[in-house]
Amino acid sequence: MKEYRYQQIAEVFEHQILKEILQPGNKLPSLRTICTENEVSLSTAIKAYYTLESKSLIESRPNSGYFVAYAPNKFPGIPQISNPCQSVKPKHIDELLAMVYQKYNKEHTDLSLAIPAKELLPVAKLNKELIKASQSLTDSGTAYEKVEGNERLRRQIAKRSTVIGTQLNVQDIIITAGCVEAISYALRATTVRGDNLAVESPVSFGMLQLAQDLGLNVIELPTHPQTGIDLEALKKALETQEINACLLISNFSNPLGSCMPDEHKKEVVRLIEKHQVPLIENDVNGDVYFGPQRPNTCKSYDQSGLVLWCGSISKTLAPGYRVGWIEAGKFANKVIQMKRFHAIAGTSITQEAIAGFLETGRYDHHLRKLRQTLHANSLHYSQAIGDYFPDGTLASRPMGGSALWVELPLKHYSLNLYGKAVQQNISFAPGGMFTLQGQYDNCLRLNYGVVWNDQVKRSLKLLGTLAKALG
Amino acid sequence: MKEYRYQQIAEVFEHQILKEILQPGNKLPSLRTICTENEVSLSTAIKAYYTLESKSLIESRPNSGYFVAYAPNKFPGIPQISNPCQSVKPKHIDELLAMVYQKYNKEHTDLSLAIPAKELLPVAKLNKELIKASQSLTDSGTAYEKVEGNERLRRQIAKRSTVIGTQLNVQDIIITAGCVEAISYALRATTVRGDNLAVESPVSFGMLQLAQDLGLNVIELPTHPQTGIDLEALKKALETQEINACLLISNFSNPLGSCMPDEHKKEVVRLIEKHQVPLIENDVNGDVYFGPQRPNTCKSYDQSGLVLWCGSISKTLAPGYRVGWIEAGKFANKVIQMKRFHAIAGTSITQEAIAGFLETGRYDHHLRKLRQTLHANSLHYSQAIGDYFPDGTLASRPMGGSALWVELPLKHYSLNLYGKAVQQNISFAPGGMFTLQGQYDNCLRLNYGVVWNDQVKRSLKLLGTLAKALG
Repeated sequence: MKEYRYQQIAEVFEHQILKEILQPGNKLPSLRTICTENEVSLSTAIKAYYTLESKSLIESRPNSGYFVAYAPNKFPGIPQISNPCQSVKPKHIDELLAMVYQKYNKEHTDLSLAIPAKELLPVAKLNKELIKASQSLTDSGTAYEKVEGNERLRRQIAKRSTVIGTQLNVQDIIITAGCVEAISYALRATTVRGDNLAVESPVSFGMLQLAQDLGLNVIELPTHPQTGIDLEALKKALETQEINACLLISNFSNPLGSCMPDEHKKEVVRLIEKHQVPLIENDVNGDVYFGPQRPNTCKSYDQSGLVLWCGSISKTLAPGYRVGWIEAGKFANKVIQMKRFHAIAGTSITQEAIAGFLETGRYDHHLRKLRQTLHANSLHYSQAIGDYFPDGTLASRPMGGSALWVELPLKHYSLNLYGKAVQQNISFAPGGMFTLQGQYDNCLRLNYGVVWNDQVKRSLKLLGTLAKALG
Repeated sequence: MKEYRYQQIAEVFEHQILKEILQPGNKLPSLRTICTENEVSLSTAIKAYYTLESKSLIESRPNSGYFVAYAPNKFPGIPQISNPCQSVKPKHIDELLAMVYQKYNKEHTDLSLAIPAKELLPVAKLNKELIKASQSLTDSGTAYEKVEGNERLRRQIAKRSTVIGTQLNVQDIIITAGCVEAISYALRATTVRGDNLAVESPVSFGMLQLAQDLGLNVIELPTHPQTGIDLEALKKALETQEINACLLISNFSNPLGSCMPDEHKKEVVRLIEKHQVPLIENDVNGDVYFGPQRPNTCKSYDQSGLVLWCGSISKTLAPGYRVGWIEAGKFANKVIQMKRFHAIAGTSITQEAIAGFLETGRYDHHLRKLRQTLHANSLHYSQAIGDYFPDGTLASRPMGGSALWVELPLKHYSLNLYGKAVQQNISFAPGGMFTLQGQYDNCLRLNYGVVWNDQVKRSLKLLGTLAKALG
């Protein structure tokens, strides 16, 4: 993706602020100086500062200019690599989930999900595409779509695959009802009841419940909050146990926010090829990166067809449209058959609407804005945790997605914090939801997809106060 | 459902024609006579005759009046109860299906499906509801729907349940992506791999493939083309084998078109309760009845929660919307959980659109027209088979749905007929698709949901000629 001049200028300052070369309170060069030194227009200079301001890195003071507003040393430390136990009989987490995902009143600050707030979605533009779709489809979407899915949509997804470091074929893309259906088919195509499934730990409860429902033994492996699954642990598991499939969120995992470096992705693919174990790659967050470019995927290193790459637009456009996809490698026929038997086809109209939206090129424009907002939010949330939470609190530093993983310096808060928070109209996702091993009781996941405002700030402050009182 | 005067008048004549009290060529009373004798307006009299005309029971001859045009003795006989064998190792029917469901050119007369033609669907009205839905939903359908589904839609379905002979609760209705997803969940909630599933024979290939994909042993039981599954056979199966679940199309089965009488439904429920075996009731065709009122369901006799009642609007409104439902009795929690894990939720916007459509009351109006057209079609098709097919050809006499089952007086046509028909731009569903036992090679299913016209008539004539040539 081409970088604009203003982005380049902003990045230089961002780097200097994050590395504490520029320190809180330092005055920044005037806009005029920026223009002269970089040979850019005034509007470019303003845009560069606006970018930094939107991320809360700098602030403008009336009649004084721009100042560094961000103190990295006030940020919480990053948690250690996880240390999942494997001894415990798998627990059901249904009750915990039912407790968390109940109906709250409107005043409630709900930080328990992992999706962007509706204000961040291009609702009006999608609506237009929906109406266009009802006109462009021959039978206005009343007829069955092909089992593989809408042709235009599949073409758009194949076209976009260059950004994930590969070139997928249109005929290999299968549309599904969201990423979850893609993963459901992938698991059912690669495993049978009683098989062993290797996953990150902590891991999205959706993946855990899906695996449990299919009767799989979940092998939770140590995972680093920045680089993802521990390669040594994965290697050992593959060598010493019968692992029948792996399920990894390669980019911006949920809940950790980790992103596997390219070298790790390459190594994982080498490992699964060596052991001939299919890898289900959940790439639902891949487009929501905060760095200069979209991260690669394991799929891009896959020569053997063992990687089943799954994605969707649920985290970037419209969860309620239920549009996702899978490139299932050598399992493609099995997945198509399964979809034919269990669903016949997906909803016609929403597929066509998303195809139209992607064709206009609006998606990239929308993603740029979404990423910028979410990145800024992640910094706001992190800073608030540094400011308000108990000393010794650790937090992940996600470079994409919308989930923040927080480790409290308490041995067990045992849902006490959750109970007290709900009384104050705040909810979050307790750490125990992200394992079947009864761990992570001192952790929580926050959704910074919720728009940053004073209410959220107050809620985080209150949450910190409640946590301190428990300590 | 209240009957109009014109319907009552038409029914009297229909009865007399079908019973051959009135014979082909007989002149009917003048419109004026109808008015006087029945004390109705001229427009009511016209409507009564129009109804009979649309079913091809009578014809108007210019300046002469109305005459009986229908000869029941020219209709093909009804097939015997089926005699499925159980000795054969289950066969896969995927190749056969792939052969049948390929892309054909526009000149092709495709009688292979079992859905009404798009011309019979209220496309424009649904479109309006879709636009209204995008306005009425708070986030225009971009947000996740509840896992149980749209509240308004569930209320409408519960409200309609009085017509199936019971009163279901709103909170017990779970929306699914079509009837197939409902049955998929139902099977997965009630069985495990290796279980025995009792079904009708012949039975819709979709049900067979679903069962095969789930690793179930399909027990195909004798079925009567008019009264459905043979009660003695079902009783014997339940008594002598371990049957883990039953899957029945109680109303207008596919492909036979049979409809279980109330007494049979009651007895089936008694049997499954006695043996504590869940019954999955596929009622997807229930609303498409040709008789005076909608037939009851097994669900209406269910006191124990063992009946999982499944339906959808795919056969009456919009297959591409993927909106269906299930009332899963005592398996409700399991089904909801499964939907949560494997799908999160259904598509928001199409559920809301269908809710809107049902609320307007247009559905009943639409169903009346649809039923009348399909009933007339079924008579046209039957008569054409009587006219053009080899002597000794038998055909089901469906009182609902859109599938006609034809038995040719040949031992084996072994797909020869299909091959020759496709060369002449005609396709149908070969009988072998409706069993895993390699039977019904001399049978075929025709979809009379295809609008009746000269081309269809010519195609059926040609099909008959090809069949005669094979004899």
